[in-house]
Amino acid sequence: MHKMMTRHQAKMILSLQKKKVREESSLFIIEGDKVVREYLLAGNRVALLAAKPEWLDGEPDAVTGMADEIVTVSYDDLRRISSLKTPHNVLAVAVMKRTAFTGKRLANGLTIALEYVQDPGNLGTIIRIAAWFGIRDIICSEDCVDVYNPKVIQATMGAFMHVGVHYVPLESMLRKAGAGGIPVYGATIGGKSIYESELSSNGIILLGNESKGISDTLLEHVTCRITIPGPEKPLAGIESLNVSMAAAIICSEFARRM
Amino acid sequence: MHKMMTRHQAKMILSLQKKKVREESSLFIIEGDKVVREYLLAGNRVALLAAKPEWLDGEPDAVTGMADEIVTVSYDDLRRISSLKTPHNVLAVAVMKRTAFTGKRLANGLTIALEYVQDPGNLGTIIRIAAWFGIRDIICSEDCVDVYNPKVIQATMGAFMHVGVHYVPLESMLRKAGAGGIPVYGATIGGKSIYESELSSNGIILLGNESKGISDTLLEHVTCRITIPGPEKPLAGIESLNVSMAAAIICSEFARRM
Repeated sequence: MHKMMTRHQAKMILSLQKKKVREESSLFIIEGDKVVREYLLAGNRVALLAAKPEWLDGEPDAVTGMADEIVTVSYDDLRRISSLKTPHNVLAVAVMKRTAFTGKRLANGLTIALEYVQDPGNLGTIIRIAAWFGIRDIICSEDCVDVYNPKVIQATMGAFMHVGVHYVPLESMLRKAGAGGIPVYGATIGGKSIYESELSSNGIILLGNESKGISDTLLEHVTCRITIPGPEKPLAGIESLNVSMAAAIICSEFARRM
Repeated sequence: MHKMMTRHQAKMILSLQKKKVREESSLFIIEGDKVVREYLLAGNRVALLAAKPEWLDGEPDAVTGMADEIVTVSYDDLRRISSLKTPHNVLAVAVMKRTAFTGKRLANGLTIALEYVQDPGNLGTIIRIAAWFGIRDIICSEDCVDVYNPKVIQATMGAFMHVGVHYVPLESMLRKAGAGGIPVYGATIGGKSIYESELSSNGIILLGNESKGISDTLLEHVTCRITIPGPEKPLAGIESLNVSMAAAIICSEFARRM
Protein backbone atom coordinates (compact mmCIF):
# COMPACT_ATOMS: atom_id res chain seq x y z
CA MET A 1 0.00 0.00 0.00
CA HIS A 2 1.24 3.44 -0.88
CA LYS A 3 0.65 6.59 1.09
CA MET A 4 -1.53 9.34 -0.23
CA MET A 5 0.07 12.48 -1.56
CA THR A 6 0.64 15.07 1.16
CA ARG A 7 -0.20 18.74 0.84
CA HIS A 8 3.47 19.51 1.03
CA GLN A 9 4.15 17.28 -1.97
CA ALA A 10 1.31 18.82 -3.95
CA LYS A 11 2.75 22.25 -3.26
CA MET A 12 6.24 21.14 -4.28
CA ILE A 13 4.90 19.71 -7.55
CA LEU A 14 3.01 22.90 -8.35
CA SER A 15 6.08 24.99 -7.58
CA LEU A 16 7.96 23.12 -10.31
CA GLN A 17 5.98 25.03 -12.90
CA LYS A 18 8.39 27.86 -12.08
CA LYS A 19 11.75 27.83 -13.81
CA LYS A 20 13.54 29.21 -10.77
CA VAL A 21 12.31 26.36 -8.58
CA ARG A 22 13.22 23.80 -11.23
CA GLU A 23 16.73 25.17 -11.47
CA GLU A 24 17.30 25.24 -7.73
CA SER A 25 15.97 21.74 -7.21
CA SER A 26 17.12 20.14 -10.49
CA LEU A 27 13.66 18.56 -10.66
CA PHE A 28 11.04 18.67 -13.39
CA ILE A 29 7.62 17.23 -14.15
CA ILE A 30 6.71 14.53 -16.65
CA GLU A 31 3.04 13.83 -17.30
CA GLY A 32 1.19 11.32 -19.40
CA ASP A 33 0.80 7.61 -18.75
CA LYS A 34 2.71 6.49 -21.78
CA VAL A 35 5.59 8.93 -21.50
CA VAL A 36 6.08 8.34 -17.78
CA ARG A 37 6.04 4.59 -18.33
CA GLU A 38 8.58 4.80 -21.14
CA TYR A 39 10.79 7.11 -19.13
CA LEU A 40 10.90 4.62 -16.25
CA LEU A 41 11.26 1.59 -18.51
CA ALA A 42 14.27 3.28 -20.10
CA GLY A 43 15.98 3.00 -16.73
CA ASN A 44 15.54 6.55 -15.50
CA ARG A 45 14.92 6.99 -11.78
CA VAL A 46 12.36 9.55 -10.61
CA ALA A 47 12.17 11.25 -7.24
CA LEU A 48 8.42 10.91 -6.90
CA LEU A 49 5.60 9.17 -8.70
CA ALA A 50 2.09 10.48 -8.02
CA ALA A 51 -0.43 8.10 -9.56
CA LYS A 52 -3.94 6.85 -9.33
CA PRO A 53 -4.00 3.49 -7.48
CA GLU A 54 -5.48 1.77 -10.56
CA TRP A 55 -2.54 2.89 -12.65
CA LEU A 56 0.00 1.57 -10.17
CA ASP A 57 -1.78 -1.78 -10.01
CA GLY A 58 -1.37 -2.28 -13.73
CA GLU A 59 2.34 -1.48 -13.91
CA PRO A 60 5.22 -3.98 -13.62
CA ASP A 61 8.04 -3.61 -11.09
CA ALA A 62 10.30 -2.45 -13.90
CA VAL A 63 8.19 0.71 -13.91
CA THR A 64 7.25 1.26 -10.28
CA GLY A 65 10.64 0.11 -9.03
CA MET A 66 12.30 3.16 -10.58
CA ALA A 67 10.62 5.62 -8.23
CA ASP A 68 12.29 6.73 -5.02
CA GLU A 69 8.86 7.40 -3.60
CA ILE A 70 5.34 6.55 -4.73
CA VAL A 71 2.17 8.28 -3.59
CA THR A 72 -1.42 7.78 -4.66
CA VAL A 73 -3.67 10.57 -5.87
CA SER A 74 -7.33 10.97 -6.76
CA TYR A 75 -8.38 12.44 -10.08
CA ASP A 76 -9.15 15.72 -8.31
CA ASP A 77 -5.68 15.75 -6.76
CA LEU A 78 -4.16 15.20 -10.18
CA ARG A 79 -6.20 18.00 -11.67
CA ARG A 80 -4.88 20.33 -9.01
CA ILE A 81 -1.21 19.53 -9.59
CA SER A 82 -1.32 18.99 -13.35
CA SER A 83 -0.47 21.57 -15.98
CA LEU A 84 -2.75 19.75 -18.43
CA LYS A 85 -6.41 20.53 -18.93
CA THR A 86 -7.28 16.86 -18.83
CA PRO A 87 -4.66 15.11 -16.74
CA HIS A 88 -3.80 11.47 -17.24
CA ASN A 89 -3.30 8.94 -14.46
CA VAL A 90 0.21 9.70 -13.36
CA LEU A 91 2.70 12.48 -12.84
CA ALA A 92 6.40 12.01 -12.20
CA VAL A 93 8.92 14.31 -10.57
CA ALA A 94 12.10 13.57 -12.45
CA VAL A 95 15.70 14.60 -11.95
CA MET A 96 17.42 16.73 -14.58
CA LYS A 97 20.49 15.31 -16.21
CA ARG A 98 22.93 18.03 -16.93
CA THR A 99 25.29 17.18 -19.71
CA ALA A 100 28.04 19.50 -20.75
CA PHE A 101 28.10 20.29 -24.46
CA THR A 102 31.61 20.90 -25.58
CA GLY A 103 30.88 21.33 -29.24
CA LYS A 104 32.94 18.31 -30.25
CA ARG A 105 29.83 16.59 -31.55
CA LEU A 106 29.23 19.50 -33.96
CA ALA A 107 31.65 17.92 -36.39
CA ASN A 108 29.67 14.68 -36.54
CA GLY A 109 26.23 14.87 -38.06
CA LEU A 110 23.65 17.58 -37.78
CA THR A 111 22.89 19.85 -34.85
CA ILE A 112 19.94 22.22 -34.52
CA ALA A 113 20.65 25.67 -33.06
CA LEU A 114 17.79 27.82 -31.80
CA GLU A 115 17.99 31.53 -31.12
CA TYR A 116 15.43 32.98 -28.70
CA VAL A 117 12.67 30.50 -29.46
CA GLN A 118 9.95 31.45 -27.00
CA ASP A 119 6.98 29.18 -27.53
CA PRO A 120 7.03 25.95 -25.49
CA GLY A 121 5.04 24.15 -28.20
CA ASN A 122 7.61 25.10 -30.81
CA LEU A 123 10.59 23.88 -28.79
CA GLY A 124 8.76 20.66 -27.94
CA THR A 125 7.87 20.05 -31.56
CA ILE A 126 11.42 20.75 -32.71
CA ILE A 127 12.73 18.23 -30.17
CA ARG A 128 10.31 15.68 -31.61
CA ILE A 129 11.48 16.44 -35.15
CA ALA A 130 15.12 16.15 -34.11
CA ALA A 131 14.46 12.73 -32.58
CA TRP A 132 12.63 11.61 -35.72
CA PHE A 133 15.53 12.54 -37.96
CA GLY A 134 18.22 11.21 -35.65
CA ILE A 135 19.57 14.60 -34.60
CA ARG A 136 21.06 14.12 -31.13
CA ASP A 137 21.66 17.68 -30.00
CA ILE A 138 19.85 20.98 -29.97
CA ILE A 139 21.82 24.00 -28.83
CA CYS A 140 19.74 26.89 -27.56
CA SER A 141 20.60 30.48 -26.89
CA GLU A 142 20.29 31.17 -23.19
CA ASP A 143 17.09 33.19 -23.71
CA CYS A 144 15.18 30.30 -25.31
CA VAL A 145 12.24 28.82 -23.42
CA ASP A 146 13.30 26.28 -20.79
CA VAL A 147 13.26 22.68 -22.03
CA TYR A 148 12.04 21.58 -18.58
CA ASN A 149 8.94 23.79 -18.84
CA PRO A 150 6.07 21.27 -18.47
CA LYS A 151 4.54 22.42 -21.76
CA VAL A 152 7.78 21.74 -23.61
CA ILE A 153 8.16 18.28 -22.08
CA GLN A 154 4.53 17.59 -22.94
CA ALA A 155 4.88 18.71 -26.56
CA THR A 156 7.87 16.44 -27.13
CA MET A 157 5.62 13.40 -26.54
CA GLY A 158 8.57 11.60 -24.98
CA ALA A 159 11.18 12.66 -27.52
CA PHE A 160 13.01 14.68 -24.84
CA MET A 161 14.53 11.36 -23.79
CA HIS A 162 16.41 11.04 -27.04
CA VAL A 163 17.72 14.53 -27.71
CA GLY A 164 20.14 16.59 -25.66
CA VAL A 165 19.04 20.21 -25.30
CA HIS A 166 21.89 22.47 -24.26
CA TYR A 167 21.82 26.13 -23.32
CA VAL A 168 24.99 27.73 -24.57
CA PRO A 169 26.35 31.15 -25.49
CA LEU A 170 25.24 30.68 -29.08
CA GLU A 171 27.41 33.26 -30.75
CA SER A 172 30.67 31.91 -29.43
CA MET A 173 29.54 28.37 -30.26
CA LEU A 174 28.81 29.40 -33.86
CA ARG A 175 32.10 31.24 -34.10
CA LYS A 176 33.91 28.15 -32.91
CA ALA A 177 32.01 26.05 -35.46
CA GLY A 178 32.89 28.45 -38.25
CA ALA A 179 36.56 28.39 -37.28
CA GLY A 180 36.44 24.60 -37.42
CA GLY A 181 34.99 24.65 -40.94
CA ILE A 182 31.58 23.42 -39.85
CA PRO A 183 28.85 24.84 -42.09
CA VAL A 184 26.12 26.92 -40.44
CA TYR A 185 22.80 26.85 -42.34
CA GLY A 186 20.58 29.77 -41.35
CA ALA A 187 16.87 29.71 -42.17
CA THR A 188 16.04 33.21 -43.39
CA ILE A 189 13.71 34.90 -45.81
CA GLY A 190 15.65 35.73 -48.95
CA GLY A 191 18.14 32.88 -48.70
CA LYS A 192 18.74 30.30 -51.40
CA SER A 193 16.03 27.72 -51.96
CA ILE A 194 16.75 24.78 -49.71
CA TYR A 195 15.89 22.49 -52.60
CA GLU A 196 18.74 23.97 -54.61
CA SER A 197 21.26 24.52 -51.83
CA GLU A 198 24.21 22.25 -51.32
CA LEU A 199 23.69 20.49 -48.02
CA SER A 200 26.36 18.59 -46.16
CA SER A 201 25.94 15.62 -43.84
CA ASN A 202 27.25 17.59 -40.90
CA GLY A 203 26.65 21.14 -39.79
CA ILE A 204 24.39 23.39 -37.79
CA ILE A 205 20.83 24.27 -38.74
CA LEU A 206 20.14 27.66 -37.17
CA LEU A 207 16.55 28.82 -36.62
CA GLY A 208 15.56 32.16 -35.15
CA ASN A 209 12.89 33.70 -32.99
CA GLU A 210 9.20 33.28 -33.90
CA SER A 211 8.71 36.86 -35.02
CA LYS A 212 12.18 38.33 -35.41
CA GLY A 213 13.99 35.44 -37.08
CA ILE A 214 17.77 35.22 -36.72
CA SER A 215 19.47 38.30 -35.25
CA ASP A 216 22.06 40.21 -37.27
CA THR A 217 24.68 39.20 -34.73
CA LEU A 218 24.17 35.51 -35.43
CA LEU A 219 23.55 35.96 -39.16
CA GLU A 220 27.20 36.95 -39.44
CA HIS A 221 28.15 33.40 -38.57
CA VAL A 222 25.80 31.81 -41.08
CA THR A 223 27.73 30.29 -43.96
CA CYS A 224 24.70 29.30 -46.04
CA ARG A 225 21.37 31.14 -45.98
CA ILE A 226 18.51 28.82 -46.81
CA THR A 227 14.84 29.46 -47.48
CA ILE A 228 11.80 27.29 -48.00
CA PRO A 229 10.22 28.72 -51.15
CA GLY A 230 6.66 29.91 -50.53
CA PRO A 231 3.98 31.59 -52.61
CA GLU A 232 5.25 33.55 -55.61
CA LYS A 233 3.21 36.59 -54.67
CA PRO A 234 3.31 37.21 -50.91
CA LEU A 235 -0.08 36.49 -49.37
CA ALA A 236 -1.38 38.51 -46.43
CA GLY A 237 -0.93 36.57 -43.23
CA ILE A 238 1.62 34.07 -44.50
CA GLU A 239 4.86 35.99 -44.65
CA SER A 240 6.71 33.05 -43.20
CA LEU A 241 6.33 29.51 -41.98
CA ASN A 242 6.18 28.77 -38.29
CA VAL A 243 9.64 27.95 -36.89
CA SER A 244 8.75 24.35 -36.07
CA MET A 245 7.29 23.79 -39.56
CA ALA A 246 10.48 25.20 -41.02
CA ALA A 247 12.51 22.87 -38.82
CA ALA A 248 10.51 19.87 -40.04
CA ILE A 249 10.95 20.73 -43.69
CA ILE A 250 14.63 21.58 -43.42
CA CYS A 251 15.47 18.43 -41.45
CA SER A 252 13.51 16.37 -43.96
CA GLU A 253 15.46 17.85 -46.85
CA PHE A 254 18.78 17.12 -45.12
CA ALA A 255 17.59 13.57 -44.42
CA ARG A 256 16.57 13.09 -48.05
CA ARG A 257 20.03 13.98 -49.31
CA MET A 258 21.82 11.50 -47.04
CA MET B 1 -17.57 58.24 -31.28
CA HIS B 2 -18.47 54.61 -31.03
CA LYS B 3 -20.75 53.03 -28.48
CA MET B 4 -19.41 50.71 -25.87
CA MET B 5 -20.02 47.00 -26.20
CA THR B 6 -23.31 45.92 -24.63
CA ARG B 7 -23.72 42.92 -22.36
CA HIS B 8 -25.85 41.34 -25.01
CA GLN B 9 -23.05 41.64 -27.56
CA ALA B 10 -20.50 40.22 -25.12
CA LYS B 11 -22.77 37.25 -24.55
CA MET B 12 -23.28 36.73 -28.28
CA ILE B 13 -19.51 36.79 -28.87
CA LEU B 14 -18.89 34.27 -26.10
CA SER B 15 -21.61 32.01 -27.46
CA LEU B 16 -19.71 31.80 -30.75
CA GLN B 17 -17.17 29.54 -29.06
CA LYS B 18 -19.84 26.87 -29.51
CA LYS B 19 -20.01 25.15 -32.87
CA LYS B 20 -23.80 24.90 -32.79
CA VAL B 21 -24.18 28.65 -32.35
CA ARG B 22 -21.67 29.34 -35.11
CA GLU B 23 -23.55 27.09 -37.48
CA GLU B 24 -26.92 28.58 -36.73
CA SER B 25 -25.69 32.15 -37.05
CA SER B 26 -23.05 31.64 -39.77
CA LEU B 27 -20.81 33.88 -37.67
CA PHE B 28 -17.31 33.25 -36.31
CA ILE B 29 -14.62 35.07 -34.36
CA ILE B 30 -11.34 36.46 -35.63
CA GLU B 31 -8.84 37.77 -33.11
CA GLY B 32 -5.48 39.44 -33.38
CA ASP B 33 -4.74 42.96 -34.54
CA LYS B 34 -2.81 41.97 -37.62
CA VAL B 35 -5.15 39.25 -38.81
CA VAL B 36 -8.29 41.33 -38.30
CA ARG B 37 -6.70 44.23 -40.15
CA GLU B 38 -5.67 42.04 -43.07
CA TYR B 39 -9.07 40.41 -43.21
CA LEU B 40 -10.77 43.80 -43.50
CA LEU B 41 -8.18 45.22 -45.90
CA ALA B 42 -8.81 42.21 -48.16
CA GLY B 43 -12.34 43.52 -48.61
CA ASN B 44 -14.19 41.22 -46.22
CA ARG B 45 -17.08 42.76 -44.32
CA VAL B 46 -17.57 41.87 -40.67
CA ALA B 47 -20.76 42.04 -38.63
CA LEU B 48 -19.14 43.53 -35.56
CA LEU B 49 -15.79 44.94 -34.60
CA ALA B 50 -15.05 45.14 -30.86
CA ALA B 51 -11.89 47.13 -30.34
CA LYS B 52 -10.01 49.28 -27.91
CA PRO B 53 -10.50 52.97 -28.79
CA GLU B 54 -6.75 53.42 -29.33
CA TRP B 55 -6.75 50.68 -31.93
CA LEU B 56 -9.65 52.23 -33.85
CA ASP B 57 -7.95 55.62 -33.84
CA GLY B 58 -4.92 54.22 -35.61
CA GLU B 59 -6.78 52.42 -38.40
CA PRO B 60 -7.67 53.85 -41.83
CA ASP B 61 -11.22 53.93 -43.21
CA ALA B 62 -10.34 51.00 -45.45
CA VAL B 63 -10.25 48.95 -42.27
CA THR B 64 -12.94 50.42 -40.06
CA GLY B 65 -15.27 51.00 -43.00
CA MET B 66 -15.69 47.27 -43.51
CA ALA B 67 -17.53 46.75 -40.22
CA ASP B 68 -21.32 46.82 -40.07
CA GLU B 69 -21.04 47.88 -36.46
CA ILE B 70 -18.18 49.05 -34.29
CA VAL B 71 -18.11 49.02 -30.50
CA THR B 72 -15.36 49.94 -28.09
CA VAL B 73 -14.09 47.67 -25.34
CA SER B 74 -11.71 47.95 -22.40
CA TYR B 75 -8.90 45.47 -21.93
CA ASP B 76 -10.96 43.75 -19.23
CA ASP B 77 -13.92 43.48 -21.61
CA LEU B 78 -11.66 41.92 -24.21
CA ARG B 79 -10.26 39.46 -21.73
CA ARG B 80 -13.79 38.34 -20.91
CA ILE B 81 -14.83 37.72 -24.51
CA SER B 82 -11.52 36.47 -25.87
CA SER B 83 -10.52 32.85 -26.24
CA LEU B 84 -6.86 33.91 -25.96
CA LYS B 85 -4.92 34.05 -22.74
CA THR B 86 -3.52 37.43 -23.64
CA PRO B 87 -5.99 39.12 -25.95
CA HIS B 88 -4.91 41.71 -28.49
CA ASN B 89 -6.70 44.99 -29.15
CA VAL B 90 -9.52 43.87 -31.38
CA LEU B 91 -11.95 41.06 -32.01
CA ALA B 92 -14.13 40.72 -35.09
CA VAL B 93 -17.36 38.84 -35.61
CA ALA B 94 -17.11 37.69 -39.22
CA VAL B 95 -19.55 36.04 -41.57
CA MET B 96 -18.83 32.55 -42.88
CA LYS B 97 -18.53 32.12 -46.60
CA ARG B 98 -19.89 28.80 -47.62
CA THR B 99 -18.49 27.53 -50.86
CA ALA B 100 -19.63 24.31 -52.43
CA PHE B 101 -16.82 21.92 -53.30
CA THR B 102 -17.75 19.86 -56.29
CA GLY B 103 -14.48 18.03 -56.66
CA LYS B 104 -13.75 19.50 -60.09
CA ARG B 105 -10.69 21.25 -58.70
CA LEU B 106 -9.25 17.87 -57.63
CA ALA B 107 -7.95 17.38 -61.13
CA ASN B 108 -5.93 20.60 -61.01
CA GLY B 109 -3.09 20.74 -58.56
CA LEU B 110 -2.86 19.33 -55.08
CA THR B 111 -5.59 19.00 -52.47
CA ILE B 112 -5.15 17.99 -48.84
CA ALA B 113 -7.70 15.56 -47.39
CA LEU B 114 -7.99 15.13 -43.62
CA GLU B 115 -9.73 12.28 -41.88
CA TYR B 116 -10.93 12.88 -38.32
CA VAL B 117 -8.26 15.43 -37.42
CA GLN B 118 -9.27 16.55 -33.92
CA ASP B 119 -6.76 19.05 -32.66
CA PRO B 120 -7.52 22.69 -33.54
CA GLY B 121 -3.81 23.52 -33.58
CA ASN B 122 -3.15 20.78 -36.11
CA LEU B 123 -5.89 21.89 -38.49
CA GLY B 124 -4.80 25.52 -38.17
CA THR B 125 -1.20 24.61 -38.86
CA ILE B 126 -2.13 22.49 -41.85
CA ILE B 127 -4.12 25.40 -43.30
CA ARG B 128 -1.05 27.56 -42.89
CA ILE B 129 1.10 24.98 -44.64
CA ALA B 130 -1.41 24.66 -47.48
CA ALA B 131 -1.37 28.43 -48.01
CA TRP B 132 2.42 28.46 -48.00
CA PHE B 133 2.63 25.81 -50.69
CA GLY B 134 -0.19 27.22 -52.81
CA ILE B 135 -2.69 24.47 -52.04
CA ARG B 136 -6.11 26.03 -52.39
CA ASP B 137 -8.39 23.39 -50.90
CA ILE B 138 -8.52 21.15 -47.88
CA ILE B 139 -11.27 18.56 -47.78
CA CYS B 140 -12.17 17.31 -44.32
CA SER B 141 -14.19 14.36 -43.18
CA GLU B 142 -17.29 15.57 -41.43
CA ASP B 143 -15.92 14.56 -38.03
CA CYS B 144 -12.84 16.79 -38.26
CA VAL B 145 -12.56 19.75 -35.89
CA ASP B 146 -14.52 22.80 -37.10
CA VAL B 147 -12.43 25.26 -39.09
CA TYR B 148 -14.36 28.13 -37.48
CA ASN B 149 -13.32 27.02 -33.98
CA PRO B 150 -11.52 30.13 -32.63
CA LYS B 151 -8.41 28.08 -31.88
CA VAL B 152 -8.23 26.88 -35.48
CA ILE B 153 -8.66 30.38 -36.89
CA GLN B 154 -6.01 31.61 -34.45
CA ALA B 155 -3.52 28.89 -35.39
CA THR B 156 -3.81 29.70 -39.10
CA MET B 157 -2.33 33.16 -38.43
CA GLY B 158 -4.51 34.55 -41.21
CA ALA B 159 -3.96 31.75 -43.69
CA PHE B 160 -7.65 30.77 -43.45
CA MET B 161 -8.28 33.61 -45.88
CA HIS B 162 -6.40 31.83 -48.63
CA VAL B 163 -7.50 28.23 -48.33
CA GLY B 164 -10.95 26.74 -48.76
CA VAL B 165 -11.77 24.18 -46.08
CA HIS B 166 -14.65 21.93 -47.09
CA TYR B 167 -16.47 19.30 -45.04
CA VAL B 168 -17.41 16.48 -47.35
CA PRO B 169 -18.29 12.78 -47.20
CA LEU B 170 -14.65 11.86 -47.63
CA GLU B 171 -15.05 8.30 -48.78
CA SER B 172 -17.31 9.11 -51.69
CA MET B 173 -15.04 12.00 -52.65
CA LEU B 174 -12.01 9.72 -52.70
CA ARG B 175 -13.92 7.11 -54.68
CA LYS B 176 -14.87 9.75 -57.21
CA ALA B 177 -11.25 10.88 -57.43
CA GLY B 178 -10.05 7.34 -57.95
CA ALA B 179 -12.59 6.80 -60.70
CA GLY B 180 -11.31 9.95 -62.38
CA GLY B 181 -7.73 8.70 -62.28
CA ILE B 182 -6.65 11.20 -59.65
CA PRO B 183 -3.90 9.76 -57.44
CA VAL B 184 -4.55 9.55 -53.71
CA TYR B 185 -1.38 9.69 -51.58
CA GLY B 186 -1.98 8.33 -48.09
CA ALA B 187 0.50 9.05 -45.30
CA THR B 188 0.90 5.79 -43.40
CA ILE B 189 3.54 3.93 -41.46
CA GLY B 190 4.97 1.22 -43.70
CA GLY B 191 4.40 3.04 -46.97
CA LYS B 192 7.09 3.79 -49.52
CA SER B 193 9.61 6.48 -48.63
CA ILE B 194 8.25 9.78 -49.85
CA TYR B 195 11.72 10.64 -51.11
CA GLU B 196 11.60 7.64 -53.45
CA SER B 197 7.92 7.74 -54.40
CA GLU B 198 6.74 9.03 -57.73
CA LEU B 199 4.77 12.18 -57.05
CA SER B 200 2.49 13.86 -59.55
CA SER B 201 1.63 17.53 -59.81
CA ASN B 202 -2.00 16.85 -59.06
CA GLY B 203 -3.67 14.56 -56.58
CA ILE B 204 -4.91 14.24 -53.05
CA ILE B 205 -2.67 14.06 -49.99
CA LEU B 206 -4.62 12.14 -47.36
CA LEU B 207 -3.70 12.44 -43.68
CA GLY B 208 -5.41 10.60 -40.85
CA ASN B 209 -6.36 11.04 -37.24
CA GLU B 210 -3.73 12.04 -34.66
CA SER B 211 -3.61 8.66 -32.98
CA LYS B 212 -5.37 6.25 -35.31
CA GLY B 213 -4.01 7.38 -38.66
CA ILE B 214 -6.05 6.67 -41.79
CA SER B 215 -8.97 4.25 -41.33
CA ASP B 216 -9.09 0.99 -43.25
CA THR B 217 -12.16 2.27 -45.09
CA LEU B 218 -10.26 5.18 -46.56
CA LEU B 219 -7.00 3.27 -47.02
CA GLU B 220 -8.80 1.26 -49.70
CA HIS B 221 -8.95 4.38 -51.84
CA VAL B 222 -5.28 5.23 -51.41
CA THR B 223 -3.37 4.64 -54.63
CA CYS B 224 0.07 5.39 -53.22
CA ARG B 225 1.10 4.82 -49.60
CA ILE B 226 3.82 7.20 -48.55
CA THR B 227 5.96 7.41 -45.41
CA ILE B 228 8.46 9.88 -44.03
CA PRO B 229 11.42 7.70 -43.07
CA GLY B 230 12.27 8.00 -39.38
CA PRO B 231 14.80 6.41 -37.05
CA GLU B 232 16.10 3.01 -38.15
CA LYS B 233 15.43 1.48 -34.76
CA PRO B 234 12.10 2.68 -33.38
CA LEU B 235 12.65 4.96 -30.39
CA ALA B 236 10.25 4.98 -27.45
CA GLY B 237 7.92 7.95 -27.70
CA ILE B 238 8.48 8.70 -31.36
CA GLU B 239 6.51 6.09 -33.22
CA SER B 240 5.26 8.69 -35.66
CA LEU B 241 5.46 12.33 -36.58
CA ASN B 242 2.67 14.68 -35.61
CA VAL B 243 0.10 15.03 -38.43
CA SER B 244 0.89 18.69 -39.07
CA MET B 245 4.63 17.98 -39.22
CA ALA B 246 3.92 15.20 -41.69
CA ALA B 247 1.79 17.59 -43.74
CA ALA B 248 4.62 20.14 -43.83
CA ILE B 249 7.20 17.62 -44.97
CA ILE B 250 4.96 15.96 -47.55
CA CYS B 251 3.84 19.27 -49.07
CA SER B 252 7.46 20.41 -49.18
CA GLU B 253 8.50 17.28 -51.04
CA PHE B 254 5.70 17.74 -53.59
CA ALA B 255 6.71 21.38 -54.00
CA ARG B 256 10.35 20.43 -54.54
CA ARG B 257 9.47 18.10 -57.41
CA MET B 258 7.44 20.70 -59.32
